[in-house]
Amino acid sequence: MRPGDVIQTKRDGGRLSPEQIDAFVGAAARLEGSGWEKYHLTALLMAIYLNDMAPDEAAHLTRAMADSGTRLDLFDIEGPKVDKHSTGGVGDKTSLILGPLAAACGVVVPMMSGRGLGHSGGTLDKLEAIPGFNVHLSEAEFRAALRNVGLGMIGQTADIAPADKTLYALRDVTATVESIPLITASILSKKLSEGISGLVMDVKSGRGAFMKTRDRSRALAQSIVKVGTANGLNVSAFITAMDAPLGRFVGNALEVVESIETLKGNGPKDLTELSVKLAARMVRIASGAPDDTKSEALIREALASGAGLEVFRKCIEQQGGDPRVIDDYSRLPTTRTTTRVNADRTGFVATIDAEKVGIAARVLGGGRSRAEDAIDPAVGVIVRAKSGERVTTGDAVFEVHYRDDAKLASALPILTGAFQVTDAPPAEAPLILEELA
Amino acid sequence: MRPGDVIQTKRDGGRLSPEQIDAFVGAAARLEGSGWEKYHLTALLMAIYLNDMAPDEAAHLTRAMADSGTRLDLFDIEGPKVDKHSTGGVGDKTSLILGPLAAACGVVVPMMSGRGLGHSGGTLDKLEAIPGFNVHLSEAEFRAALRNVGLGMIGQTADIAPADKTLYALRDVTATVESIPLITASILSKKLSEGISGLVMDVKSGRGAFMKTRDRSRALAQSIVKVGTANGLNVSAFITAMDAPLGRFVGNALEVVESIETLKGNGPKDLTELSVKLAARMVRIASGAPDDTKSEALIREALASGAGLEVFRKCIEQQGGDPRVIDDYSRLPTTRTTTRVNADRTGFVATIDAEKVGIAARVLGGGRSRAEDAIDPAVGVIVRAKSGERVTTGDAVFEVHYRDDAKLASALPILTGAFQVTDAPPAEAPLILEELA
Repeated sequence: MRPGDVIQTKRDGGRLSPEQIDAFVGAAARLEGSGWEKYHLTALLMAIYLNDMAPDEAAHLTRAMADSGTRLDLFDIEGPKVDKHSTGGVGDKTSLILGPLAAACGVVVPMMSGRGLGHSGGTLDKLEAIPGFNVHLSEAEFRAALRNVGLGMIGQTADIAPADKTLYALRDVTATVESIPLITASILSKKLSEGISGLVMDVKSGRGAFMKTRDRSRALAQSIVKVGTANGLNVSAFITAMDAPLGRFVGNALEVVESIETLKGNGPKDLTELSVKLAARMVRIASGAPDDTKSEALIREALASGAGLEVFRKCIEQQGGDPRVIDDYSRLPTTRTTTRVNADRTGFVATIDAEKVGIAARVLGGGRSRAEDAIDPAVGVIVRAKSGERVTTGDAVFEVHYRDDAKLASALPILTGAFQVTDAPPAEAPLILEELA
Repeated sequence: MRPGDVIQTKRDGGRLSPEQIDAFVGAAARLEGSGWEKYHLTALLMAIYLNDMAPDEAAHLTRAMADSGTRLDLFDIEGPKVDKHSTGGVGDKTSLILGPLAAACGVVVPMMSGRGLGHSGGTLDKLEAIPGFNVHLSEAEFRAALRNVGLGMIGQTADIAPADKTLYALRDVTATVESIPLITASILSKKLSEGISGLVMDVKSGRGAFMKTRDRSRALAQSIVKVGTANGLNVSAFITAMDAPLGRFVGNALEVVESIETLKGNGPKDLTELSVKLAARMVRIASGAPDDTKSEALIREALASGAGLEVFRKCIEQQGGDPRVIDDYSRLPTTRTTTRVNADRTGFVATIDAEKVGIAARVLGGGRSRAEDAIDPAVGVIVRAKSGERVTTGDAVFEVHYRDDAKLASALPILTGAFQVTDAPPAEAPLILEELA
C-alpha cells in the first residue's frame, strides 16, 4: 500500500479502509521501514483536517492508535475502572477532587494526565506542586496505587499510544490540531490504554476553552461518545462553561490548596458542584445505575464525611508526596510576594476572562509556551471577586502571587483587562451546559 | 514567520501573503536553516490542493519559484523569444516540428523540456534517440545555439527553479500533483526562467491527457493565461484533443522519423495541422500581429520550402547530433523485430485509446514508470489505421516495434484493447477544441 494512495483517498473525501488506517498509524508509531515519511503523515493529517472522518473511521483510528502501544490490563484489580477527562481550562482542578471522591465510593480510577500548555493548566503540574509527589510510577507501582488507594495519578508512560506522540507533535506544527476526529482519537487512544471500562468526558466550551463555540464543543462531545462506545467504553459527556476560571485559584500550588479545601467541604460553589456531578457520573457508570440520584448522594456523603479527603491523603502518601500538606498549606511552594488588582469602580463583577487569567498565570511563570519550558509551581492568581459578586472601588478583584518583578509587570495589564465591573449584576450563567449519553 | 501560521492561513481558506509565499518557496529551494521541514511543505501543499489559490497568489508563487533559481537573461540575443509548452500526451512530437518552423520564421525558441513519465512521452527522450544529440548544454552552448540556429532544445539545468524540484518531488508522493495553481506555478516558473517574452500553451484534454475533462483543461488553460500575463508573459493557450495518439508514430526514434517526415511535408494531417497552428501562434506573438493569418502563411511557407527542415538539421548539428538522420532513418535506433495487431473484423476504426497506446509503448521499454528508469529509444507503436479509417479483417491496426518477447507479451493485450472497429465511421472530432487569449 503506497502512502500516496492512502492520502489520495482522503484527499478525495473518501473513507479510509481499516488497512489504510493501520498503515498510517503503524508508520506513525514506527517510521523506520514503514515506507512512510513524516511528510506523508502531515499531508494526510491535513486531508483529514479538511475532509473529516466518519465515526467508524475515527473509531478504527482510535483503536489502531491505542494498539500501537501498551494497553494496560487491569482485570486482576477488583472493581470497575472509570476515569474522567477534560479538554482543559483555567482553574480546572476537578481531577484532584473527583478522583478521591470516586475512589472513596469504590470506583478504581487509573488516571493518566497531561501537563499544562498555553493558557490551560495540567493535572501533573498541580500534583508535582506537592513536595515529593511522583507522577512517574512504574506499571507495578501504578497497579499498587490502584490496589491500595483505588486511585493512581500519573503521566503517560512512553509505551502508551506511541503513534499519538508522533502525530500530535506533527499536528502541533502543521495547524492540524483542531480536527474533531484527530482530537477524539488522540484523547481516546490514551484512555483506552488505561484499561478502563468507563469514561466521563468534560468538554469545556467558551473563551477559556480549546473549543470556543458550543457547536464545536458539541461536535467533539458527540464524537467522543460515538467513538468511545464503538470501542467498548461506557462514555458520558458533559459540555461545561469555561468562560471564567473554575473556582478562585489559578496556579499549581494554589490549585492544590483549593482542591484540599474543596475536599474539606469549603470549596467554591462552582468547583464543588462540577466535581460532585462528574464524580457522581463516574460512580453511576461504575454501578450501572439508571440515573445519578444514588451516585450523587454517595459522592456528597464521601465529601461530607471527609472520606474523599482521606483518599487524597493516602494517594499523596502512596505516590511519595508529603501528606502533611493536607493540614499545613505552608508546606506547599509559595511566592511570599503578592499584590492585588483592584476594582476601579463600584458595581458587580460582570466577567472574568478565563483565557486572560490563564495567560497571566503563564506569564508569571506558572505555565508553558512550549512543552519543554520549566514552570514555577508557586505563582498564580486568586480571583477574589468572581462574576456576580459586588465590589466597591479599591476592592481586590485579583490577588497575584508572583516571584519576578518583570513577569509581574507583563502580567498586570493582562489581568487589568481580564474583568469588567458593571452597575447591574450579570445574568447567572449555568456551569453545565449540556449532557450527552 | 512560523510555518504553522502560514499553513493555518491556507487551511482556513485564506489568501497567502507574498511574504508567506516567499517563506514557503524559500524553504522549498533551501530547507536548511529555513525553519521549515518537508512535513510543513506537504501539509501546506495539501491545504493548497484542497482550498485552492486565487490567481494573484498563484502569480506570486510562480514568480517566487522562478526567482528561487537562475533566470536566463537573453537580452543580448536579437529577436523575440517565444516557447511552446504542452501538458503531455501520446505521440505528441509537435515540439520537434514547430520549434524549427518558428525559428525558420525568425522566432528565437529557447526550449527547455522534460522527459516522459507514465504513459506520456517527453521531448528530451525523443531528441536523445538521435545519435550524439546532447540535451545538456552549458548556458554558453545554449546561447550559441540560440544565436546560430534560433533554436535550442535542452533539459532543465540544475539551477532552474530549484523550489519546483523539491515541491514536485513531494507532490508526486503525497497526492498533490493535480492542483491547478500548483501545476500552473510549476510550468510557468520554469518557462519564466527561460527568458522568454511569449508562450504558446497546449493543454491536452481527454483520456490520453493528464487532464481528462474539458472543465479541468479549461481551468488550467485559464490559470496559465492569467498567471503568465501577471508575470509579463504574452500567453496564448489552446485546448486540444488527446483521446487518440497524435500522428501515427509513438516511441522515441519512431517519433523523430515522423517529425522529420512532417517537416518534409509528408506528415499526417492532425500532427501537421496542430504543429502549424501552434507555430503560427508563436510567430504571431513574436510579431504582435492582430490575428494568425500572416503568421500561418509564413509557417506554411517554411514548411513547403523546407526551411523548417533545414533549421532542424542545423539544430541537430549544433547540439552534437548526427544530421544525416534527416535523410537516412536507418541511422536511428531500430528494433529490427516488429509484429502487428490486426483488425478482427471489417469496418471503420472508431477509437484508438491514446492512454493504452502510451502504456503499451512504456511496457515495451520506451517509457518510464519511475523517473530513474532507463528507456529503449527504438521500441514503439505505429498506428497503421487511425480513427475513421476503413479496415478489413486481417488489416494491421498497430505495427509494434519490440525488442523483448516478454515485454511484447505484456504489451499486446493492452493494444488489442486499445481500438474498436464499428460498422459506421465515427463522427469526425475536432483536434483544437478551444482557444484562450
